Amino acid sequence: MMLMKVLLQKATAKRQLSNISIIKAFCGFATMSKFDLPERLIGNDKSVWVEYIGLALKYKPLNLGQGFPDFHAPNTVRNALANATLGTNPLLNQYTRSFGHPRLVNALAALYSKLLSRNLDANKEILVTSGAYEALYATIQGHTSPGDEWIIIEPFFDCYEPMIRISGGIPKFIALRPTKASGTVTSADWIFDKNEMANLFNEKTKGIIVNTPHNPVGKVFTFEELQFIADLAKKWDTLVVSDEVYEWLVYQPYKHIRIATLPEMYERTITIGSAGKTFSVTGWKIGWAYGPENLLKNLQVIHQNSVYTCNTPIQEAIAIGFEEELKKFGQPDSYFTSLAEELLPKRDYMAKFLSEVGMFPTIPEGGYFMVANWTALENKVKLDEETDTYKDYKFTKWMTKNVGLQGIPPSAFYSNEHKHLGEDFVRYCFIKNDENLKEAADILLKWKNQQ
Amino acid sequence: MMLMKVLLQKATAKRQLSNISIIKAFCGFATMSKFDLPERLIGNDKSVWVEYIGLALKYKPLNLGQGFPDFHAPNTVRNALANATLGTNPLLNQYTRSFGHPRLVNALAALYSKLLSRNLDANKEILVTSGAYEALYATIQGHTSPGDEWIIIEPFFDCYEPMIRISGGIPKFIALRPTKASGTVTSADWIFDKNEMANLFNEKTKGIIVNTPHNPVGKVFTFEELQFIADLAKKWDTLVVSDEVYEWLVYQPYKHIRIATLPEMYERTITIGSAGKTFSVTGWKIGWAYGPENLLKNLQVIHQNSVYTCNTPIQEAIAIGFEEELKKFGQPDSYFTSLAEELLPKRDYMAKFLSEVGMFPTIPEGGYFMVANWTALENKVKLDEETDTYKDYKFTKWMTKNVGLQGIPPSAFYSNEHKHLGEDFVRYCFIKNDENLKEAADILLKWKNQQ
Repeated sequence: MMLMKVLLQKATAKRQLSNISIIKAFCGFATMSKFDLPERLIGNDKSVWVEYIGLALKYKPLNLGQGFPDFHAPNTVRNALANATLGTNPLLNQYTRSFGHPRLVNALAALYSKLLSRNLDANKEILVTSGAYEALYATIQGHTSPGDEWIIIEPFFDCYEPMIRISGGIPKFIALRPTKASGTVTSADWIFDKNEMANLFNEKTKGIIVNTPHNPVGKVFTFEELQFIADLAKKWDTLVVSDEVYEWLVYQPYKHIRIATLPEMYERTITIGSAGKTFSVTGWKIGWAYGPENLLKNLQVIHQNSVYTCNTPIQEAIAIGFEEELKKFGQPDSYFTSLAEELLPKRDYMAKFLSEVGMFPTIPEGGYFMVANWTALENKVKLDEETDTYKDYKFTKWMTKNVGLQGIPPSAFYSNEHKHLGEDFVRYCFIKNDENLKEAADILLKWKNQQ
Repeated sequence: MMLMKVLLQKATAKRQLSNISIIKAFCGFATMSKFDLPERLIGNDKSVWVEYIGLALKYKPLNLGQGFPDFHAPNTVRNALANATLGTNPLLNQYTRSFGHPRLVNALAALYSKLLSRNLDANKEILVTSGAYEALYATIQGHTSPGDEWIIIEPFFDCYEPMIRISGGIPKFIALRPTKASGTVTSADWIFDKNEMANLFNEKTKGIIVNTPHNPVGKVFTFEELQFIADLAKKWDTLVVSDEVYEWLVYQPYKHIRIATLPEMYERTITIGSAGKTFSVTGWKIGWAYGPENLLKNLQVIHQNSVYTCNTPIQEAIAIGFEEELKKFGQPDSYFTSLAEELLPKRDYMAKFLSEVGMFPTIPEGGYFMVANWTALENKVKLDEETDTYKDYKFTKWMTKNVGLQGIPPSAFYSNEHKHLGEDFVRYCFIKNDENLKEAADILLKWKNQQ
């Protein structure tokens, strides 16, 4: 905008044209007007998802890009949704409580009270949102004043950065870096530098966003790593936003640790969860935040002024899902544990075929993504045919168009200054049915064996 | 916050106490901290809904407060939702396109292309949102820079004001005023002063929000009124946000006019609609905005950074609802027309019993609310027992607690400077089954006849 204004002023001065004709000459009538994007929003309109979903629609590759299952969600929640909308109570299709449907906040309070060994108040310490996405948005918008700094660990779920910027905050980045370049790499080998982390904290730090289990690396943060972060948060009196949407997707023998359970940490932690990830219904768009009442109040102000209340029959169905899970808690038929068990062989199968084709995958401890270093295959890919800046964008686009398999470029999950750290990698999703994973393997192996 | 700081400074200077102990003394440890509400959000945390839903839960009155039906939504959409979640396509429970499920945006484009006699691009001129509420939010957030002025017509859907304030805008208010104080008043008798309206527009005006059919008055703006507003919007190059969530709830012989269809108005109009209001499923939380691509782009930036994508099976079901309606368009079994026909006798019944009890209702031309002047009954109500500032709050609370019937105080729908204009009124909702309306009548008549 500023640049455009300067250019316009210069052009007006030199050529004595009217502003209107110059505006038209520069960019067409519709693109510069009183209705342009407000300054705080400029630069926050890009999305790797919009671009790659468009690509998938155009080229119809086997799509291992986005993180959602291509098999059926559990019957319990699907039946519960059908019953809620078709049932005898007409009010289950009407507005429910703004901060969360009573049955759902009660179920969530029962679950997390058990997991945190602390009595959560269903009405004051839980907020139900339009997906974990809105919970992140309400957290960041509700807790950011201009100039506040937020620490983000790279690679990161790409929405963190624009959410912070449009609320007036300043993101500060620290990368997880793999300590090995070849051989069997696991997500535990991706670590942050402790001095670098300690140096990012200062008086302006409003908070840090921790994502465990981690997307896209699959890292399950250790107690020791979380304690290190917790100590810094306490030292500098900052928030911790713990994005735990993959909390049930942890592979044996690893254990998910909730940072809110560390000593004196509940008081400064907002934890975010997702029904979509928990019950394999990403299209249901129900998430939540839990934490102390004084911290959640800020989120409520954003929620009641942006979305106000969430879908009632969906909340009813998810409440029933949790009630059933609470009955089966710790038993083998609990979906909380059975989904990870079902995904484990898929993970290992993908690691095997990616290795066979010549990539170096990072074996994830949690989540349902796998990042793999593809650079050993560079001579088989015509990167020059793609015009993108970053090599991983070129690789993934070329593969989509020419090989028929789509992944996501991880540099989308890094700040501008660190995008080079993601360039050697591709992210694939393995919560897919076995036929599609087999087809992915076949596509890659056939391509590898081509002359 | 400022006051608190000054008080703290004075106290520290005088009494030589540490800041910490004073903070504790003033407000307890948890209430003043680094995590307090950011300044732009302060004062935007009140909601008449949170308060009155709480009241309803406590006193269990017959609730004619909130606007939702207490009878079943049409089978078409309920069956479609059950089929979407239980059907053979597992992807209908997973993420769909961010800016709107393809089937739904196609159905909406077909509908509004017909209604506007203009070809709408399903992918560029429609955005699906988490309720009309999020569409309003994305519109205001996406189009407001600090200092921009928005014109709001009072009484107004109460979220408009905080949405404008938290985006840095400045609301400017103009009231609809009834031209009669007694006798049969209709919503057409509530009008705005044209000079007052013209004087509100200036160079800082970003836009005006028009709500037709109107909540709570029920006014269906006339062509002449809309043309007057349109001419001002063109003269001052402003947006028009047309909140048309009650577009199908118009009583014969009145006609809903879409301001976007007036000459040269599509270019500057963002129109907002609601599946909840259209299909009597307020708990489904799907709405949309339509308008020219360059105006919708701003909304997309907010949407993709706050909610990102909406519920898939719900969108599928609503798409099917619209497809069915398009087939029946203009026929007697169309829900678009049959709902208003079903509501007409309910409207008239409510007007009759409110009149019989001594109130002066405004007969609405559209929507499903009725405002009524209750002041003739003031001697039957002990307003002194309530501590609220405004008489309508006192009246509605006293009635909830002592008579067992709940309405909403309309002063909640006015700016601070104009709240007195709402004090003589109460808002009741009549999209309720006949038994409940009969019970409301019985409650009021019994109360009237009490000594």
